[in-house]
Amino acid sequence: MSIVEQMLETHPARRGLAVDQRLRACIEACGTCAQACTLCADACLGEPEVADLVGCVRSNLNCAQLCEATQRVLSHRTEGDEDLVRALLKACAEACRMCGEECERHAERHEHCWVCAEACRRCESACRELLAAL
Amino acid sequence: MSIVEQMLETHPARRGLAVDQRLRACIEACGTCAQACTLCADACLGEPEVADLVGCVRSNLNCAQLCEATQRVLSHRTEGDEDLVRALLKACAEACRMCGEECERHAERHEHCWVCAEACRRCESACRELLAAL
Amino acid sequence: MSIVEQMLETHPARRGLAVDQRLRACIEACGTCAQACTLCADACLGEPEVADLVGCVRSNLNCAQLCEATQRVLSHRTEGDEDLVRALLKACAEACRMCGEECERHAERHEHCWVCAEACRRCESACRELLAAL
Amino acid sequence: MSIVEQMLETHPARRGLAVDQRLRACIEACGTCAQACTLCADACLGEPEVADLVGCVRSNLNCAQLCEATQRVLSHRTEGDEDLVRALLKACAEACRMCGEECERHAERHEHCWVCAEACRRCESACRELLAAL
Repeated sequence: MSIVEQMLETHPARRGLAVDQRLRACIEACGTCAQACTLCADACLGEPEVADLVGCVRSNLNCAQLCEATQRVLSHRTEGDEDLVRALLKACAEACRMCGEECERHAERHEHCWVCAEACRRCESACRELLAAL
Repeated sequence: MSIVEQMLETHPARRGLAVDQRLRACIEACGTCAQACTLCADACLGEPEVADLVGCVRSNLNCAQLCEATQRVLSHRTEGDEDLVRALLKACAEACRMCGEECERHAERHEHCWVCAEACRRCESACRELLAAL
Repeated sequence: MSIVEQMLETHPARRGLAVDQRLRACIEACGTCAQACTLCADACLGEPEVADLVGCVRSNLNCAQLCEATQRVLSHRTEGDEDLVRALLKACAEACRMCGEECERHAERHEHCWVCAEACRRCESACRELLAAL
Repeated sequence: MSIVEQMLETHPARRGLAVDQRLRACIEACGTCAQACTLCADACLGEPEVADLVGCVRSNLNCAQLCEATQRVLSHRTEGDEDLVRALLKACAEACRMCGEECERHAERHEHCWVCAEACRRCESACRELLAAL
């Protein structure tokens, strides 16, 4: 059982089981995607052809930022925050889509972009699935 | 001239003047609002009636998080990120609206909530004005 | 193989194997601890006796903040940053120690504090082991 | 009166006046420095000779991260956190020193680095003055 799962199970406020499963999946996907994007940004900065990867660095930084914010807001069981959560999940899914597509373009040449694109796609899906369940 | 203004004036990529003015205003309002919300969350935690202020703490933490993320993403001149910026500005404006209304409810009893509500309202306006200019 | 491991393996700059193993472990422990602390802060806010848990909320917020900063800085292979990395690892280990001890005090009554204390202890160890290897 | 000053004045827990003045100055300097570093990182990414500025981007990202974490932790009036605050202020001062020196090296060619170096130096001083007062 992951830490997030244990924490959600012992939280005094629990939502319905289906939402909780997607909430857990989304919090975890955001954490993984933020790590991947932060490391991909730095790996791009370390490549000799960094000048071609500037757009990828910026997308990575944006995506890491959105994933961290989403992870935190999803962890707060704030009453009546549905509009905020929805708006943020849409923004996060968009950041993941943009970053995933940008990384995809460099995936053949840079394995770190390939790995990161995969993390972005998974996080985008997790955001959209939670959005659908809310 | 503020630091943000100086930094935007010396940035290699500059957008149109009107957008730059609202961009600067929004980055600064986000920074101020994040500071206010972080301090208001902690001030609420220090009040004897903290149990009545739990919703305010959570709104403060959410709003600080969104303002920081928005401030960062707005600082990145990423090509083709208009959809992301729009979605994020909407989410940030919503976080500011929620937090401003929650703080407003406690403003008579707690001066820190009064100060924070004002910062939230200004940041919400700055987000909406930038949204309108994009 | 975890995402962090895959990213480090495909990063253009690689340090010695022993450092890389501890680096990976520390980045992952910071990510897990930040998630646990963010969720524990919110769980404490949701408890009827929140007034007794204010110190725990503050320690949780501090620890989450330090873990996120450490995770990011460790992901940047900045030349000549040894003094910064050392100072930050010490600060992060101290935040984990404080939060772990505070959560420990509430662990019998609140299972989320018990889970979180464990995450803090692991992260403190990971920071100290990386410090020793640098 | 700045927002930070208003928030500290209305906070239920107040320390001695001298500490409060330096606390305020440090929180504000961290906020300004984080903004400058985030914008300088992006400006460097936008320069044609980005390959020569990779070290500056990384120092900027580290410094922004440390300043944000310090700003948050200083806003939390956690009892018994002196060791953590001291360790974090040292790490933040070191990040500002590193980033200030790196930006200084590019200050003649890039005005954004000149502005950012100044913000780093001010933040380093503010951290050291608060350290001395604790």
